[in-house]
Amino acid sequence: MVRIFVTGGTFDKNYDEISGRLAFKDTHLLEMLRLGRSRVPVSVRTLMMIDSLDMTDADRQLIVRNCQQCEETCIVVTHGTDTMVETAAALARGVEGKTVVLTGAMIPYAFGSSDGLFNLGSALSFVQVLPPGVYIAMNGQHFAWDQVRKNRESGIFETI
Amino acid sequence: MVRIFVTGGTFDKNYDEISGRLAFKDTHLLEMLRLGRSRVPVSVRTLMMIDSLDMTDADRQLIVRNCQQCEETCIVVTHGTDTMVETAAALARGVEGKTVVLTGAMIPYAFGSSDGLFNLGSALSFVQVLPPGVYIAMNGQHFAWDQVRKNRESGIFETI
Amino acid sequence: MVRIFVTGGTFDKNYDEISGRLAFKDTHLLEMLRLGRSRVPVSVRTLMMIDSLDMTDADRQLIVRNCQQCEETCIVVTHGTDTMVETAAALARGVEGKTVVLTGAMIPYAFGSSDGLFNLGSALSFVQVLPPGVYIAMNGQHFAWDQVRKNRESGIFETI
Amino acid sequence: MVRIFVTGGTFDKNYDEISGRLAFKDTHLLEMLRLGRSRVPVSVRTLMMIDSLDMTDADRQLIVRNCQQCEETCIVVTHGTDTMVETAAALARGVEGKTVVLTGAMIPYAFGSSDGLFNLGSALSFVQVLPPGVYIAMNGQHFAWDQVRKNRESGIFETI
Repeated sequence: MVRIFVTGGTFDKNYDEISGRLAFKDTHLLEMLRLGRSRVPVSVRTLMMIDSLDMTDADRQLIVRNCQQCEETCIVVTHGTDTMVETAAALARGVEGKTVVLTGAMIPYAFGSSDGLFNLGSALSFVQVLPPGVYIAMNGQHFAWDQVRKNRESGIFETI
Repeated sequence: MVRIFVTGGTFDKNYDEISGRLAFKDTHLLEMLRLGRSRVPVSVRTLMMIDSLDMTDADRQLIVRNCQQCEETCIVVTHGTDTMVETAAALARGVEGKTVVLTGAMIPYAFGSSDGLFNLGSALSFVQVLPPGVYIAMNGQHFAWDQVRKNRESGIFETI
Repeated sequence: MVRIFVTGGTFDKNYDEISGRLAFKDTHLLEMLRLGRSRVPVSVRTLMMIDSLDMTDADRQLIVRNCQQCEETCIVVTHGTDTMVETAAALARGVEGKTVVLTGAMIPYAFGSSDGLFNLGSALSFVQVLPPGVYIAMNGQHFAWDQVRKNRESGIFETI
Repeated sequence: MVRIFVTGGTFDKNYDEISGRLAFKDTHLLEMLRLGRSRVPVSVRTLMMIDSLDMTDADRQLIVRNCQQCEETCIVVTHGTDTMVETAAALARGVEGKTVVLTGAMIPYAFGSSDGLFNLGSALSFVQVLPPGVYIAMNGQHFAWDQVRKNRESGIFETI
């Protein structure tokens, strides 16, 4: 059983047609798992629906606490890319003996051209086979939490 | 470096608008890697573009030979789902010391509702971390080549 | 009020994932109207779900009779492109005092790259403003029923 | 020959993956015409790429002048929905003897779930058959410029 914690991020941004702005509504995660015809047993829980630039320390502690306390030892966290590395560090400090994989998207799933489905397939696969630790899965690659940064100009995660 | 061998299958079926039938043209693989923003170094080669129901022993031997002879030790093979298990068995008999992951799709990528991008993200991730052997990656899961069958009625791969 | 008669055609072809073939299930018409946010009052009825190459004279008479007998004077008929011109001729012989617009698609709606939504928007607009008569609306154009043929090689409707 | 003037609006909003915000880049109009397999002879010109809430009187005069001075008598203007009615009024005051149809979208075309292709098919059809005048084509309907308003709460254009 894989636990999936949803925290928002580009992954789940929607276009609000009344305001003409991007906004969060419900997560697309279940729809994406259906589309991918995933047969991985999962249990999904939405912790928050926010832009990761707005994520506070309290939010991060909530994520850490949920990863500590859940029964599952394989955990995927969907997360905005901008502060994914910070949350990964918080998780590495607080969670032991579990495989935690953070993933996200550069383009909202609701857009036809999203990388979200690819990333979800990737994260869900990595989490099943990587040894305990905290990882970021983006662009088909996985990175240990302390060996990665997001290049803000190119939007790409790279090894440091 | 991951080697990707393309053999056709539902993954790459197109709608031919003149004949009104499904047909193979070029592979969508590079387009899918672009959409997924994959940063995994890959080298792609199309071996054939056929429905796996039409795959002959000679075709299978061609796939085996290519997997033996390529430099890479991580190999993804895109393949029709109907005889994916047979090709996996042929690969298991003929390839040693390499991680080979077969994947495919239930719905053509050219359809909006394809599981292909999810499966590609999954296969590309499994191949980077699984020990040498031959595997099938479908529905977010991976199966050893000799512990899986496709349930023809449900279209689902299941452990045997 | 516009009456829409559904007869199948490429418009409504689906990919059957168990057989790996194209097949008809339910019409996508209501979903397309929702996607287009159509506010045109319509009443939709599925008369048949067939490839227009399989359409018999009896099928055509059924379409003609339905167009004669319905209350509405504005009628859209979704139809396979291969014999759309034949059905248009049958309608022209049998229906008077009504505006009937036949439309279809070169690529199934279920494919991401379908022309179906464009054609539906077009047909639904033409039917509201054209004088009584039988027309084909394809590729953003409208043709009188007796001044058009489908070029089988290019897949394009052209004036004769 | 139909002239198409592009002014931006939701139609053409893109997701900028570096900033994580909606932004304008190039118009999607040619891609949409290709997808719709439009065979209507058109000549497309981008006048501006802005949110219609940011449109000034000077911008509107630029649109009016272009509609006056172009050779074509059938003109489609793609436009944000929020001030489409204002621009329609400016066009009605300034343009004579031509059929001008404004259209737009509630959801950006770049989103899979856009109404844009439907509206484009609709506008391009109405412009070919409506008598000279200024119209708004949305939701499959057409409205004379002085008999319509956008309901800001529902996002729907309605007759006044």
